[in-house]
Amino acid sequence: MTYCVGLLLDAGIVLLSDTRTNAGLDNIATYRKMFLFETPGERAIGIMTAGSLSITQTTMARLSDAIDDPDGEKSILRAPTMLQVAEIVGSMLSDVTSEVASKMERMSQKATASMIVAGQRKGGPMRMFLIYPEGNFIEATADTPFLQIGEHKYGKPILDRVIEPGTSLADAEKAVLLSMDSTLRSNLSVGMPLDFAIIERDALEITRRRRIEADDEGFARMSAAWSEALRNAFAEIDPT
Amino acid sequence: MTYCVGLLLDAGIVLLSDTRTNAGLDNIATYRKMFLFETPGERAIGIMTAGSLSITQTTMARLSDAIDDPDGEKSILRAPTMLQVAEIVGSMLSDVTSEVASKMERMSQKATASMIVAGQRKGGPMRMFLIYPEGNFIEATADTPFLQIGEHKYGKPILDRVIEPGTSLADAEKAVLLSMDSTLRSNLSVGMPLDFAIIERDALEITRRRRIEADDEGFARMSAAWSEALRNAFAEIDPT
Repeated sequence: MTYCVGLLLDAGIVLLSDTRTNAGLDNIATYRKMFLFETPGERAIGIMTAGSLSITQTTMARLSDAIDDPDGEKSILRAPTMLQVAEIVGSMLSDVTSEVASKMERMSQKATASMIVAGQRKGGPMRMFLIYPEGNFIEATADTPFLQIGEHKYGKPILDRVIEPGTSLADAEKAVLLSMDSTLRSNLSVGMPLDFAIIERDALEITRRRRIEADDEGFARMSAAWSEALRNAFAEIDPT
Repeated sequence: MTYCVGLLLDAGIVLLSDTRTNAGLDNIATYRKMFLFETPGERAIGIMTAGSLSITQTTMARLSDAIDDPDGEKSILRAPTMLQVAEIVGSMLSDVTSEVASKMERMSQKATASMIVAGQRKGGPMRMFLIYPEGNFIEATADTPFLQIGEHKYGKPILDRVIEPGTSLADAEKAVLLSMDSTLRSNLSVGMPLDFAIIERDALEITRRRRIEADDEGFARMSAAWSEALRNAFAEIDPT
């Protein structure tokens, strides 16, 4: 499985993904699930993927091919709006899913994938979309400033309590890392290292990118501090 | 959906369930999902249910009928061990599931249910089982002192951090209520009122039973205090 979370805040876009891929418990590997594209000064886009690796890899490969094709109409770096970027990704995902599905059907198996697409192009607003396996999508709004794919339930309570559009980027980084920390603790199929990125409002480039390895001291310290803070908070609550 | 959690601690058994049942979003009702049985001084048993109401109601009705039948061999109040109680419940659940399944198949629908069965009889240890729709089951142990059914993911991180066999009953009550609180906040299909029960070790009766209504002041106060404690804890954590 996977856990990816994206925030659409007043100050910018915050993205976090894990990297664990497994086909059965004895076939575990690390694959990047976050893909960043930019034409500095013109646009910056982040895509995160969850689901069948055969589908997400093929879809991402086709998106890259389309960017390299000078005549292609399906380049996410040339599409005039973020909405059209989401439509390009959705239609490729849908095409790949149905191609793979027809092969899987013979084996009575299923494969699907979903994606989060977020970014901003010059002159347009920041936007973030969750793209379903069928290619349709929903968009983050001020009422719902975060989107999640994969194993999203363990890490949702902290986001529900902390994230709103006015949340600072520093607090947002803490919140998504703690949301991931809860997921890592409760679900074996989500694993380190993590990929983290920020696209600040109107920066039109990937403002920050960071890979957090399994031995990252900062993350381990934050994780331990959060465990202790939770236990202290728990001890201080009066029973009903 | 549903959220039920049971703890098997050194000091006793702690059970908590919600009561929301829905068949579509416009058909929401309150049904008890926790059923307590006792022969004071001889045995005390708690059963919690999740899944299709048609299956859980029929199973519970048959369990009650079997208790009332003086010749019945399937009375959970006469079975010589808790293991046999779990086997009785498992076999009834399995029978009802396959009866209903044969009807549902015609409509291409599926219905399943699972249960948590916990208790102690005189002279035996406290035991707690999670019974799957097929009737087979797993048992809580010192390594895994809690079992959950229904929407279990939102409320698992707090249990993972706090619950161990030596946890006091007062802390256990707080922990399951906070685990439920996270679930209520993040998932609409789980709803108040709540049913709470404690079977203390060797008490051989239901030591405590409590229904927590939607307007319960103690629960609201604890929920608000937990939200504030979480936000304070969050604010105090240094970013990585």
